[in-house]
Amino acid sequence: MERGERGERGLTVSDPGGALPITSLQNPRVKAAARLRDRRDRDREGQFLIEGYRETLRAVGAGLPLGELFFCPAFFLGENERPLIERARESSGARPVELAEHVFAKLSYRDRPDGLLAVAPIPKWDLASLDARAAARAGAPLILVVQAIEKPGNLGTMLRTADAAGATAVIVCDPATDLWNPNVVRASVGTLFTVPVAEGESAAVRAWLRERGIRVVATTPDAERLHSETDLARPTALVIGSEQYGLDAEWLAECDERVRIPMRGEADSLNAAISAAVVLFEALRQRG
Amino acid sequence: MERGERGERGLTVSDPGGALPITSLQNPRVKAAARLRDRRDRDREGQFLIEGYRETLRAVGAGLPLGELFFCPAFFLGENERPLIERARESSGARPVELAEHVFAKLSYRDRPDGLLAVAPIPKWDLASLDARAAARAGAPLILVVQAIEKPGNLGTMLRTADAAGATAVIVCDPATDLWNPNVVRASVGTLFTVPVAEGESAAVRAWLRERGIRVVATTPDAERLHSETDLARPTALVIGSEQYGLDAEWLAECDERVRIPMRGEADSLNAAISAAVVLFEALRQRG
Repeated sequence: MERGERGERGLTVSDPGGALPITSLQNPRVKAAARLRDRRDRDREGQFLIEGYRETLRAVGAGLPLGELFFCPAFFLGENERPLIERARESSGARPVELAEHVFAKLSYRDRPDGLLAVAPIPKWDLASLDARAAARAGAPLILVVQAIEKPGNLGTMLRTADAAGATAVIVCDPATDLWNPNVVRASVGTLFTVPVAEGESAAVRAWLRERGIRVVATTPDAERLHSETDLARPTALVIGSEQYGLDAEWLAECDERVRIPMRGEADSLNAAISAAVVLFEALRQRG
Repeated sequence: MERGERGERGLTVSDPGGALPITSLQNPRVKAAARLRDRRDRDREGQFLIEGYRETLRAVGAGLPLGELFFCPAFFLGENERPLIERARESSGARPVELAEHVFAKLSYRDRPDGLLAVAPIPKWDLASLDARAAARAGAPLILVVQAIEKPGNLGTMLRTADAAGATAVIVCDPATDLWNPNVVRASVGTLFTVPVAEGESAAVRAWLRERGIRVVATTPDAERLHSETDLARPTALVIGSEQYGLDAEWLAECDERVRIPMRGEADSLNAAISAAVVLFEALRQRG
């Protein structure tokens, strides 16, 4: 039995700091967790990584079940980490596992780790369950629909922005990056767990919106009308296309209205997450 | 003389594809260029890197002088690269140097290189020269002021957004990341060269704005008034703080007005570049 296996005791003790930490990079659970950075492994295992204090806090707050919760006190930034570990163990089924500093540093995908990294089963967040998850959100629906976003950082920033704007939900169509990429979780600062999210095919998403009487407003540089010249206070889905190609022909043909964000510069486009922010906060302004 | 030195001829031939490419990773000019990824080397050499077709196009269009212009036809995406190399040689003093594929791939800092990477002297963009550079911009001044931004990607995205919003200028205070970081150039998609930019100390920047009668509007989550409830059509400087700490006490004390972006979510903040976009495009909306 190798040295690192001692950490197994970390699973069962009630004081998460009481067991000896795992010191071997070859520990099978550490290696299994590290593999979840890779999409194929996430898809195969049905699990993903949640790194960071705020991210873990929001996952626990949202009631997500957790698996292993790796921690390393040397990286803690404050006093709140141990109570969160305890809460995660009690309410989310997390299994705390202490790692030695060099092992945690290796498992972490951050420049500045804060000593918490959880493994969690990938939730089944599809269109069929979205109504129930979004039911608590008051007011006319405001839904951000994004198509084929490639960059995890952009997708995560869009989730964070939609959360801040009080959006009813975010629907991710035809994903090029999966929602469970560690950089989505990071850029979302854990709002992946607080704003209702669903993945779906574009045609199914359009049908879902149509059934609910939600007006589909597509953003495209080729539109005549400005985003601020249309009524966004009604039930609205704001649709944003990919960084490289924008929205596809079906979305542009089957939307209720096309709008553009004004461009006054020499460059011809905005970052996709910036575009989402500009239209979401214009909707918020109109809604007072 | 090592094999890679053959590429020296690339400096003088009129057909940039006519000389044999540099094939050695040890070529001194390739190594000198690679070192410019590091801030200390940029500061010491007074040079920085411009990678990419659009970025190089905008630098040439803005009249920046260039040094070496490394290129690798195997990575070209279209037919426009060779005419741009020729134009850069004639109008910007660029010295085209062809690199073998593996050498260019090593020098590039992109996942998907497009075969162009220039070295350029760092411009002296200070407050003293900003009036002259911004003089061509019509209408009431709209200036984005950012303080101590840490992430190059955020700073570059802010430049891209300010360009799209038709901002008069961007002023970078107390920089934590320097403007000449390769990831600033990349995230700005070359708008670093199209929107007038200056670096300065915060106190000097406030004096500069006051002398010109420009109203200073600071964004902070603690303000009472919403960003959309104040007049942004007047000459305005919108001030955004760092990702981690927001604006410092001096900016908050010495501004003309504080505004906040409404927050309706569970998270307590927006990405700094998103905040800049929301206030810039609200100003643009008010200006019609």
